[in-house]
Parts: sequence; structure tokens; C-alpha cells
Amino acid sequence: MLPLGAPGYGPPMSGPKSENLTWHIGEVDRATRTAAHGHGGATLWFTGLSGSGKSTIAHRVERALIERGAFAYVLDGDNVRHGLNQDLGFAAEDRVENIRRIGEVSRLFTDAGAIVVTAFISPYRADRDRVRELMPDGQFIEVFVDTPIEICESRDPKGLYKKVRSGDIKNFTGIDAPYEAPETPEVHLQTDKLSIDEAAEKVVDYLAKQGIIEAT
Amino acid sequence: MLPLGAPGYGPPMSGPKSENLTWHIGEVDRATRTAAHGHGGATLWFTGLSGSGKSTIAHRVERALIERGAFAYVLDGDNVRHGLNQDLGFAAEDRVENIRRIGEVSRLFTDAGAIVVTAFISPYRADRDRVRELMPDGQFIEVFVDTPIEICESRDPKGLYKKVRSGDIKNFTGIDAPYEAPETPEVHLQTDKLSIDEAAEKVVDYLAKQGIIEAT
Repeated sequence: MLPLGAPGYGPPMSGPKSENLTWHIGEVDRATRTAAHGHGGATLWFTGLSGSGKSTIAHRVERALIERGAFAYVLDGDNVRHGLNQDLGFAAEDRVENIRRIGEVSRLFTDAGAIVVTAFISPYRADRDRVRELMPDGQFIEVFVDTPIEICESRDPKGLYKKVRSGDIKNFTGIDAPYEAPETPEVHLQTDKLSIDEAAEKVVDYLAKQGIIEAT
Repeated sequence: MLPLGAPGYGPPMSGPKSENLTWHIGEVDRATRTAAHGHGGATLWFTGLSGSGKSTIAHRVERALIERGAFAYVLDGDNVRHGLNQDLGFAAEDRVENIRRIGEVSRLFTDAGAIVVTAFISPYRADRDRVRELMPDGQFIEVFVDTPIEICESRDPKGLYKKVRSGDIKNFTGIDAPYEAPETPEVHLQTDKLSIDEAAEKVVDYLAKQGIIEAT
């Protein structure tokens, strides 16, 4: 049983039902959620070039966290672009709105006490900082997947760089559109020096060091 | 340790890093999530008139689920209208988009394995049914908070009915805008016959009966 008298729980329900109906905000506070789940909430915001390894590492981190009993979930293009953001294209204002909505959804997951892992290029510093400002201090964790563009292009998992070079794609981040690298990311992953497991471990270690998950 | 060989886990990572980078979708499948969390994911979609008790019961359900060790979270006007949907007003198309986005976010939470509890009037059957279609069968659970409008108006927790009667609010659900009651909701709560705790218990019992949470 959880400590029901913990701060955040409201008064006991008694008296005529109708009198109490306006009291409904926040029966469960953050501390109670953390105790119940065994970990705090956080947003691991992965950013990096196309082909840098964001999705791969993000999914490895999700798996590592779930293996430790945490509630973790990856938000990426696969589950967001075809659903929540299906009405958005790739024009400048749509890209801003895309990141804004993902940021707001991340905030909801984080508020719920989940560890959400996002994997979007998110090239603009201002967009990422806006998401950071949505969260309480310490709950937004920027993870820079730092892979030299030559390596990204040689991997080219989706064949996108090839299309850029042939002129079929314009405004491609890192080629003819800017990528604004994080200046002080919480976690810096140099993927030319780390295996996928080592990179994932570095992220999980950071969460433990911050006390968001328990150290093992 | 989780069964790492369970279906949904991909091949072991070996060989040159770059060769494996395209394999990143779904390291963790639904069965693994369910085993790790001790329960399945679901959307408890509360619908009912303003003042019917949706939010109150939704928060009581959330608390009851968290006490049982489940990962649960309420989505309501407080955390959605001021964040994700801050760009939406109350025009007809904005109301449709409001429910669409909440439905998509509910789908993400449900996919993550959470039990999400939504508390929105959501007066139109077509809007609710569109959300239902986003989820696998059995994971969308419509909860009809069925409270006679006279009782809602006598409670009037936000003073809205008073403003409707004085003419300050137009197009108010149940008065001069339609409320399309669910025809076959999964859970039907007649709040004039149930206490808040009894109503919450009925919802939790339904989840247990469906095998989404363990029976106690």
C-alpha cells in the first residue's frame, strides 16, 4: 500500500457527493508516483543527424530501462508522424509545430512518471530549448548523438543521403540545411568511439547518477 | 531479468556497427511490456456532461490503479488544453482536432503499456468512435458517466450552468448543444446511484475482468 496520507492526496471523501465534486485535481502527487513506480519521470531528448544512430540507441535504452523494471517508451517518427502529427508537413512552421507537440507529449509522459525517449533530428537549438522549458529542472535530458556526417552518409540507412546527392531531396539537415549542435548536452555520445550498448549504458548511467533510476 | 529471447526482440547486435543501424524498430514487444509492468495498456475514455463527475471519478480510478502498482495517468483539460492543445479554440473544427489529438496521445500511452484515463465531455459519438478505431480491440474502454443534467446543473462545480442560464455562454453541451450518449459503453456509471468510490471500483473491476490488470 502507498502512503495515502502523503502530500498531494486531498481530503477524504465524505458528506454529500455533490459537495466534493469540485475537488479533483491531483489525488496523486509526484513523490507518490515516484515511490509507486520505483523511479522518476524524465525526457531523454535525443538529437543528431539523420543516420547518426538516434533511433537505434534510443530503442536500446528503452529496452535496458524496461529490463530494470522502469516504465520507458520511445517516441519517434514511426509512432508520431503517422498519428498525432499526421496533419503536419515539412514546411518550416510545420517542423516547429512537430517538435512543439512532441515536446508537449513528452511533458505529459514525464509528468506521469515515465522515462520517455525521443528520437528526432530536432536540428534547431531554439526548438529544443522550448521543450526544455516545459519541464521542471533536471527532467529534460538532452542526448547529443554526435556522429560525423561522413559516417552518417556512409551508413545512409534510409537511402536519404543518396537522394540528396542526386538532387531528389532538398533542405536536408547537415547538407543544405543547418544542424545546430547542442552546446552543453547532458549526455554526449560520440558514436564513432562507442558501441550501441556502450552508448545506451552511458545514458542509463546518467539517469542513475541523477537519481532518476536506482543505481544497480 | 526479462525474457530477452521473447518475440519482438530482434537479432543480437554483432558485426560492424554500421551494418545493424537500420534495425531499430521495436526491441520491446507488447507481451514483454505487459510482463514487465504487470498489466496491459488501455484507454479509459470517460464521457459525460459538464458536472457529471468525470474528472473526480477519473482521478479516483488513477489513484486506485497506482495503489495497485499500475502505471496510470489522467489526461484532462488541465494538462492538455494549456499545453498540447493551447493553439485550439472552441470552434467546431478545433473541438474535433482537440479530441483527435487527445485520442492520438492516448494511443501512445496505451501502446507504451499505460492505463490512461481521459476526462473530456467528448459529446460526439463520431469523435469517440474515431479514437476507438485507433486502438487494438479491447484497449479502448468507453466509460459513460451518466448523470441527469438536473444533478449536473445543481452541482455546477465551475459555475458554468449559471452562466448558460444568464446567457453568458452559448453552445453548451446538454443545453443548447447536443450530447450524444454512448449506446453501448463498456462501463456505465449511474452516478446518482453510486458513490465516487463505488464508481471507481466498478471501472477497476472491469479492467480486472478483462485481464488488463490482475484480479486481487
